[in-house]
Amino acid sequence: MLIVQKYGGTSVGTTERIRNVAARVAKYHAKGDKVVVVVSAMSGVTDNLIRLAKDLMPLPNEREMDVLLATGEQTTIALTAIALHSLGVPAVSLTGAQAGIVTDGVHTKAKIQNITPKKIHDLLNQGNIVIVAGFQGQTLEGQVTTLGRGGSDLTAIALAAALKAGLCQIYTDVDGVYTADPRIVKNAKKLDEISYDEMLELASLGAKVMQSRSVEFAKKFEVIFEVRSSLNENPGTIVKEETRNMEDVVVRGISLDKNQAKLTLVAVPDKPGVAARIFKALGDANVNVDMIVQNISHGSGVPATDLSFTADKPDLLKAQNVIDALKPEIGFGKVLTTENIGKLSIVGVGMKSHTGVAGKMFETLAREGVNIEMISTSEIKISVVVDLAKGEQAMKAVHAAFFG
Amino acid sequence: MLIVQKYGGTSVGTTERIRNVAARVAKYHAKGDKVVVVVSAMSGVTDNLIRLAKDLMPLPNEREMDVLLATGEQTTIALTAIALHSLGVPAVSLTGAQAGIVTDGVHTKAKIQNITPKKIHDLLNQGNIVIVAGFQGQTLEGQVTTLGRGGSDLTAIALAAALKAGLCQIYTDVDGVYTADPRIVKNAKKLDEISYDEMLELASLGAKVMQSRSVEFAKKFEVIFEVRSSLNENPGTIVKEETRNMEDVVVRGISLDKNQAKLTLVAVPDKPGVAARIFKALGDANVNVDMIVQNISHGSGVPATDLSFTADKPDLLKAQNVIDALKPEIGFGKVLTTENIGKLSIVGVGMKSHTGVAGKMFETLAREGVNIEMISTSEIKISVVVDLAKGEQAMKAVHAAFFG
Repeated sequence: MLIVQKYGGTSVGTTERIRNVAARVAKYHAKGDKVVVVVSAMSGVTDNLIRLAKDLMPLPNEREMDVLLATGEQTTIALTAIALHSLGVPAVSLTGAQAGIVTDGVHTKAKIQNITPKKIHDLLNQGNIVIVAGFQGQTLEGQVTTLGRGGSDLTAIALAAALKAGLCQIYTDVDGVYTADPRIVKNAKKLDEISYDEMLELASLGAKVMQSRSVEFAKKFEVIFEVRSSLNENPGTIVKEETRNMEDVVVRGISLDKNQAKLTLVAVPDKPGVAARIFKALGDANVNVDMIVQNISHGSGVPATDLSFTADKPDLLKAQNVIDALKPEIGFGKVLTTENIGKLSIVGVGMKSHTGVAGKMFETLAREGVNIEMISTSEIKISVVVDLAKGEQAMKAVHAAFFG
Repeated sequence: MLIVQKYGGTSVGTTERIRNVAARVAKYHAKGDKVVVVVSAMSGVTDNLIRLAKDLMPLPNEREMDVLLATGEQTTIALTAIALHSLGVPAVSLTGAQAGIVTDGVHTKAKIQNITPKKIHDLLNQGNIVIVAGFQGQTLEGQVTTLGRGGSDLTAIALAAALKAGLCQIYTDVDGVYTADPRIVKNAKKLDEISYDEMLELASLGAKVMQSRSVEFAKKFEVIFEVRSSLNENPGTIVKEETRNMEDVVVRGISLDKNQAKLTLVAVPDKPGVAARIFKALGDANVNVDMIVQNISHGSGVPATDLSFTADKPDLLKAQNVIDALKPEIGFGKVLTTENIGKLSIVGVGMKSHTGVAGKMFETLAREGVNIEMISTSEIKISVVVDLAKGEQAMKAVHAAFFG
């Protein structure tokens, strides 16, 4: 079977760990599998290169940043190949360019356009393990490019698609995807499987196993992949298209996002176009707005509403400036802001066909004395904003209610 | 004018020093020159990468070492380009492959086969400074290669030839080539010019300004270059084909090589083929033999001679083993070895047309009470082996005799 394995920066952070990766890879090779290994830069290396560049210039040129950062993965592929040689296993390293990964020319966040896997197939057919540099590619004109955050996962999944791999394994420092963050919820359970859509919701909700774009790519090209640990032999979590029996599970996982802030505009004039004006301005300023709730105002006779929304905490100041600039034009009252919120979400494709999920969640929170400040729902997700101080308590209670 | 400038690892060892390099390069650019900059890996980086590889395997695969080591120069080109941007100067980095440097496939010591400088010309014509990674190239099949020790000098000189540069400057941490090592001979003088052949003799004699192969390449392609300091604005030493007026200077420079050892085979049978047998065996064992002297033996009635030769100190044990293995076959007497020698050499194309140079040197040594153990001469060089303890004293005296 052709297997693509991806190892992140922590898994290859020292020569000792690279040796461990080599031993694991060699085991699959010994069983007769064809193995393609995608590696990231050794942990700390990329940050160090960025520091050197920023030492020279606060906003370094993106083409040159790609030339610079691509060296990180190139270092790892050579060392990983050497580690395999030391075990007597034939292995050849390939940079993104050598592996035939062609991207567009948008430096630091290039998109993969095309993969020509002939060289990889040739090397595999000669009995080699092939080590490919993650995170990088080359334009048709020969420019070095990088794929942006989570780029090595993307390389692995794109290679699995191009090579029609039988298995794609994303090795990381956790055992897989859990029903909730096991550091907070002690009896959280590892999931055997999860659908792309559930994984995407959990990723965007702050369960940082993988970046959304890699999951989206896998969904688009129907690449089934497994998230598993490079520290043990435990099976991980399979991520794949939703199957009928997946709907039997109403709630797949619970996440708590502590990185949101809330802004409330009091007494916004209740007339058409006002909300559009506000969120257009926020969008133009690259403020990533998440939840939006509009309430009836408890104010005076003029028709007005209170408008609340959440945004990423680091964007709070920027959002406030945008709102302040709009005040003369729109004429609302006070602006209230708080960083003391947590967004608690439950995710599951089973919600499509099961009722009473929201009721059970709200009831659980009420019993815990947790006040719900905002509510937002999608077909497979229910999110509520609660007091940050009660976030973990709320998460534990909701987890207990759905997973017993 | 088109100028190629090369900066070594010490000159780009920190971001602060890269900034200094950028400032110097920018000055030439501001004067209207087209500048191509060749850089080495930041000092320490290459050694660190080698250490990581050897940590995994004592003799790592050479193809993978090239993939690994090429990252060092790639890092420097990006940082140098960014440093130039920070000064508001347009600059573009190119890896060896991107610069069109095609080599053969002999990993870790590849030879440049061909340079296609179109991309460099295009970028220069658009007003850019072009930063090229030294020490590296690519085969026609897309394999990453490196050029071996002194490879960045070679890149610079080869680019100067391919681009028909008006000037090639090799920046280093010394002011140029001196009549003798200024750390030993206080009144050593910096040379304004030196011929390729003199430079080659001095390089091979242990004056470590540049590797011989770069000078040989420059001689072959008639590239005039200047060795100068990256720490000040002083003019350096021009290295070029010998001109008639160069012969007016009898002795160009003096070097002292402390890295040789001497072996003497006592009472070697005086018959044809014996010397050939000995030096063939040493050559097969990769022992680099330098001087050879054969004396009449002061022994008994059997026709025999004493045979002495010098070799690099690290090769002494290997040489001894080769000699010991030959003893039963050839049947010589004792083998004497010493590491306490220094090889003092005077070099100058003027020796071809001037007499009395050797006499003056030997006379000077005699006056100092320095015994000459071995003598070897070429058309432009006289070397003598003396007691290591008297090496520096001898050098100072000979320097005073020729340079006053």
